[in-house]
Amino acid sequence: MTTQQLFEQIQKKNSFLCIGLDVDLNKIPKHLLETEDPIFEFNKAIIDATHDLCVSYKPNTAFYEAYGIKGWQSLQKTINYINEKYPEIFTIADAKRGDIGNTSTMYAKAFFDDLQFDSVTVAPYMGKDSVEPFLAFENKHTILLALTSNEGAFDFQTKNVDDRELYKQVLETSKSWKNSDNLMYVVGATKAEYFTEIRKIVPTSFLLVPGVGAQGGSLAEVCKYGLAENVGLLINSSRGIIYASNGTDFVEKARVEAKKLQSEMSEILSK
Amino acid sequence: MTTQQLFEQIQKKNSFLCIGLDVDLNKIPKHLLETEDPIFEFNKAIIDATHDLCVSYKPNTAFYEAYGIKGWQSLQKTINYINEKYPEIFTIADAKRGDIGNTSTMYAKAFFDDLQFDSVTVAPYMGKDSVEPFLAFENKHTILLALTSNEGAFDFQTKNVDDRELYKQVLETSKSWKNSDNLMYVVGATKAEYFTEIRKIVPTSFLLVPGVGAQGGSLAEVCKYGLAENVGLLINSSRGIIYASNGTDFVEKARVEAKKLQSEMSEILSK
Repeated sequence: MTTQQLFEQIQKKNSFLCIGLDVDLNKIPKHLLETEDPIFEFNKAIIDATHDLCVSYKPNTAFYEAYGIKGWQSLQKTINYINEKYPEIFTIADAKRGDIGNTSTMYAKAFFDDLQFDSVTVAPYMGKDSVEPFLAFENKHTILLALTSNEGAFDFQTKNVDDRELYKQVLETSKSWKNSDNLMYVVGATKAEYFTEIRKIVPTSFLLVPGVGAQGGSLAEVCKYGLAENVGLLINSSRGIIYASNGTDFVEKARVEAKKLQSEMSEILSK
Repeated sequence: MTTQQLFEQIQKKNSFLCIGLDVDLNKIPKHLLETEDPIFEFNKAIIDATHDLCVSYKPNTAFYEAYGIKGWQSLQKTINYINEKYPEIFTIADAKRGDIGNTSTMYAKAFFDDLQFDSVTVAPYMGKDSVEPFLAFENKHTILLALTSNEGAFDFQTKNVDDRELYKQVLETSKSWKNSDNLMYVVGATKAEYFTEIRKIVPTSFLLVPGVGAQGGSLAEVCKYGLAENVGLLINSSRGIIYASNGTDFVEKARVEAKKLQSEMSEILSK
């Protein structure tokens, strides 16, 4: 998918919502545990109930790997389901991978070729030759960690490297990498005031923004500082939507929560 | 496995060799491609031929994920085979994971509980709360990326953060994390002269050292600067051993290459 197609979908749905499919068997409705593949059944129900309100789904691979081969099968079925039934959706493998060159190519193959995701999140610590193998895939997107939403972001990311914070150094340096047009960035909503500075470095890049809702970030604040001409934001919500209820009404409740965010987004876009 | 048990194995085998199982279907002997699970058959043969010469095996997860569910099955069979047949071996999942707290716990479960690896490699970019969930597992080890062996290491890792290079900041900061006794570090052999400085910060921590052989690092140089009282080194070789031949003699040739490194190590240890 191209970023232009993503932008068109945003305009059509009046939404830049991404729903995180971080599925924990301990948190999903009990009645699903009797099915053959509870994780996939849960995802399928959530997707069917929310696909018109969001533009993206983001399974976090950790939640699938924790269940071994069975989990990997659930992930495969989930991405296949989205790609077949809702091909307009922008899919993100939240995998936070990254390794030396030839190994990164194998990860890129895993997520872009084998699983057919549109994008994958990647960690920047190993530098240029660990990220460029992902960037080589046409119409696929590499979402680089810049400033994350957790407390540990202050351990290294906000420390000064030469004359600026590490996360700014990451943003700036990555722009010089080959096929950098395929880059997007993770920037946590819990640090909304940082968006002004970030937009000076990457004015129109798409930013994947976790941390709205459960982690305390504000949608309005993020948009105030982070919205670009092409919108340029994908706001992620996981737990706030998918675990809105753990009863038999989980689908309806998830839709209510997704609709709240979409309405807020629609209002912001209309201004 | 405890580090004491790892040390005892090193003394017994006169080896601190780790063999990287980075298995690419395009590089293994053609006759194996006719078997049901070529990756596992290849690993099994390599392991049977080298287990007495090394103390550790390190599958890189990228090479398994690239083949989807089938690849994940090969990984599972490989780790099960090692754990059952050679339980003295220290196993490393070279996965370079790391995410926010609850998600890192899921990765830790995937590698420590489900797959039963002794250790996993983790990226430091997201800081303390992304690493501590791994450290919480008893007698399991978290191998934090410090200074990697690739060119991109110079993009951020060697840049000055406040008064010292980022990788030194990572080493120093990580020592304050809860259960930091369970930490080991990745330090590339291509930068042997850095080991002196690194040993000032982590005098006895085990260092996993990629980059000997194919990537140009020297075993003698690394040992000169990096050897600790408890040895404290795991020297990894992947391609140099496992792809020593792609004919029917691949097992014998792999053993010859592993033996060369083990003999060199034995000589170093005897001094």
